[in-house]
Amino acid sequence: MDYIERTMKSDKIYDGKIVKLRIDTVELPNKKYSKREIVEHSPAVAIVAVTQEDELLLVKQYRKPIEKMIYEIPAGMVELKEKPKDAAVRELREETGYTTDKIEYMTEFYTSPGFCDEKIHAFYTEDIEIDSQNLDEDEFLYCVKVPYDDVVKMIMRGEITDAKTIAAVLFYDGIRRKIHA
Amino acid sequence: MDYIERTMKSDKIYDGKIVKLRIDTVELPNKKYSKREIVEHSPAVAIVAVTQEDELLLVKQYRKPIEKMIYEIPAGMVELKEKPKDAAVRELREETGYTTDKIEYMTEFYTSPGFCDEKIHAFYTEDIEIDSQNLDEDEFLYCVKVPYDDVVKMIMRGEITDAKTIAAVLFYDGIRRKIHA
Repeated sequence: MDYIERTMKSDKIYDGKIVKLRIDTVELPNKKYSKREIVEHSPAVAIVAVTQEDELLLVKQYRKPIEKMIYEIPAGMVELKEKPKDAAVRELREETGYTTDKIEYMTEFYTSPGFCDEKIHAFYTEDIEIDSQNLDEDEFLYCVKVPYDDVVKMIMRGEITDAKTIAAVLFYDGIRRKIHA
Repeated sequence: MDYIERTMKSDKIYDGKIVKLRIDTVELPNKKYSKREIVEHSPAVAIVAVTQEDELLLVKQYRKPIEKMIYEIPAGMVELKEKPKDAAVRELREETGYTTDKIEYMTEFYTSPGFCDEKIHAFYTEDIEIDSQNLDEDEFLYCVKVPYDDVVKMIMRGEITDAKTIAAVLFYDGIRRKIHA
């Protein structure tokens, strides 16, 4: 059984640097109309990067919407005409100063599919080498290396509160434990 | 080392039913100014609900922002003056027709902290009983029971693409495997 909501009308509310906002009037499966507030966001990437000493690279940064600093894995938006894989390597280098030429695709997921179209492509690498950090001019963050098992414990203790980081690290943990699909 | 971004000005762009949008002008750690587009969203809840037969309750619904039907765990917004725990029980009942009086807190996470303040409180229950489904009038979804191990495999195969579902189910898996913080 498949439901669908047909777009009857679409009103653009805002067109920004990071997000766009539109209101769609949709026809529901029961033929009634409803409104959907939809935030548009570019596709993004995130990468679980593990050192030879089995440490995971985390970045800690201030996030204005929640008014605090939190730990996340390196991540960012895919640029125009850029492949997600290349974006992941670029963001890894920009945010941590490490680079890789051996990166593996893990999965992709939507961060808030109820109201936003943002999709994150998640990768991992266990083969990184030092290059140089290169942050955007409005980006302030620092990178920490945390032993892998401790990152999993930080998640289980509630010390990591970023959904993409929890999803990607625990997905990677599934790969390490060889949970085969 | 802690960074902070001071709000110098805040412009309201939109005030909707589900989201609000504002643009904050912030002072960066280097004293320069920048703009932050911020989507405001009510706190939400999500619940991993497991039957006595070790099946997990998933809801499948059409998500307009991504124009497709996806699997998710039961979830929804916390209502005014409602406790997250009560909201989780309510959403479970409304979306699946099951209820519980034994619910456990797992963790909480932000779905997209770069541009949105949405926080999800995640719970689980292994003690549910049939009550009656009661959807919102603009809500069309159906509930499926999937053997627990199969849900983990669906995640690892990329068949579950909702970040909160991946994060919450794999977090719950950590609890089952007794990964102690």
